[in-house]
Amino acid sequence: MRIDPLDTFISHYKPLVENRLENAVTQLEAPESLKNSMLYSLQAGGKRIRPLLLFATLKAFGYKPEMGVDTAAAIEMIHTYSLIHDDLPSMDDDDLRRGKPTNHKVYGEATAILAGDALLTLAFKMVGSIDPETADANVKLALINTLSKAAGAEGMVGGQVADMEGEGEKLTLKELEYIHINKTGRLLAYSVLAGAEIAQANQSVKDKLSQFAHHIGLAFQIRDDILDLEGTEEQIGKPIGSDTENEKNTYPSLLSLEGAKKALTEHISQAKQALSTTGLDTTLLEQITDLIGLRNS
Amino acid sequence: MRIDPLDTFISHYKPLVENRLENAVTQLEAPESLKNSMLYSLQAGGKRIRPLLLFATLKAFGYKPEMGVDTAAAIEMIHTYSLIHDDLPSMDDDDLRRGKPTNHKVYGEATAILAGDALLTLAFKMVGSIDPETADANVKLALINTLSKAAGAEGMVGGQVADMEGEGEKLTLKELEYIHINKTGRLLAYSVLAGAEIAQANQSVKDKLSQFAHHIGLAFQIRDDILDLEGTEEQIGKPIGSDTENEKNTYPSLLSLEGAKKALTEHISQAKQALSTTGLDTTLLEQITDLIGLRNS
Repeated sequence: MRIDPLDTFISHYKPLVENRLENAVTQLEAPESLKNSMLYSLQAGGKRIRPLLLFATLKAFGYKPEMGVDTAAAIEMIHTYSLIHDDLPSMDDDDLRRGKPTNHKVYGEATAILAGDALLTLAFKMVGSIDPETADANVKLALINTLSKAAGAEGMVGGQVADMEGEGEKLTLKELEYIHINKTGRLLAYSVLAGAEIAQANQSVKDKLSQFAHHIGLAFQIRDDILDLEGTEEQIGKPIGSDTENEKNTYPSLLSLEGAKKALTEHISQAKQALSTTGLDTTLLEQITDLIGLRNS
Repeated sequence: MRIDPLDTFISHYKPLVENRLENAVTQLEAPESLKNSMLYSLQAGGKRIRPLLLFATLKAFGYKPEMGVDTAAAIEMIHTYSLIHDDLPSMDDDDLRRGKPTNHKVYGEATAILAGDALLTLAFKMVGSIDPETADANVKLALINTLSKAAGAEGMVGGQVADMEGEGEKLTLKELEYIHINKTGRLLAYSVLAGAEIAQANQSVKDKLSQFAHHIGLAFQIRDDILDLEGTEEQIGKPIGSDTENEKNTYPSLLSLEGAKKALTEHISQAKQALSTTGLDTTLLEQITDLIGLRNS
């Protein structure tokens, strides 16, 4: 029985987080140029996979997805800041992101760095200010501490450093997985685990959702690598083959394209397997899993 | 009666926050290069004025300064990240900071940006993880939310953007004050107000400490501007006159050197006036106020 097919769900909940993001930045008492730079990247499109994962997790527990909107906005702010900083000339030096000029191309490097800093900083206030009826003080603190861990040196930022250091070197699959579990996986996983935290799930269910999140994180990155080879510039919003050109270690470069596709199928299957053991209504999470494995952009 | 003269206080409490900073970074499970880059700037010296303000505020309430150590470390992480990002080529392009090569000169731009990001992210976990006996969950959330506000678009980052936009333009005193209240003042003020929050001060005392913090924040910046003209390179750890060279708006450039000195004396005096109305034992805070007004580095 499909009570809530994914497309209806997306069309309802994607605007919810997008409006929250817009309001949170618009109402800041801050220089207009800074706010414009923050909004530019927040509104540059994107699938909002992380917010959707959080909303779908709450739904799986029988909770209202609306309860996750502030946390979802915080996650999207952190995801967005990481893209702004990654695109900088001293990092990946990308001119295009989702088919539009990158933040520093429009606002200059200094403002882009500061817009990233401001988004990262604001994210913690979003979580710290969740309505007390949605999450009590201890739940909010748990959300803040795990967000810091997932996004910082022990998570996303650490993965980005490892990724940079691996460029031009031949990595093992284990090293590549370390990079992607941290660089991409940890924030995707956080989106699921934040939902479990708000729903005050028991540890056993959290562990199963962790397993699920681990596999979709890797699936997400493998799909990304495959798209860089097989997608069109229109689909992915940047030139095809840029990973190869930048001597990035990717799943296809390590496993061959066919091997990467096999690994993708395997992670998708294990993600669904983990879901099936939770005892929750995981219809939407399964559909998002397919979306991650099959997406074209 | 001087129970606790400032030098004894500093020699006791400065190492406390410095050890906390070192431990917090050393124990991270993260790439060594990232941790080294974070530690390099955290350990580059500095007066630790913000931690000392927090400790002295707790002391003024009759609380143990030790209660502030995690918050002090968080503040110093945020202060340090802001210096790393400010020094970048696309920002102030400084090669020296406190007489040592800036972070990006040693670790490269990309790692410097990411070390800053990691410090900012870790700061919120420091506050979120304070021992529950020191601060209950609601106090910790208040500390996190006000830290985000003081450090982000509505505070320090906003001030930095306004400062950049004002370069090469002739600002009014009001515009210059807006910049410095935000760029420098907000985090200094937070150091005092965080102490009041941990001590669970009433609103009236918080308001008086806000006044105090406002004046020491401006005094700090005016002293900085004066030192840029009158200090030695050895004292301030970077070339003299760099503000003038960068066409920065400063208090001396707006008010003349003599006018700036007069404004400094006035803010110091108003800061002490505000302190005297709090009813607290403010001996140490007064001494730190003098330190801010008279410092040579």
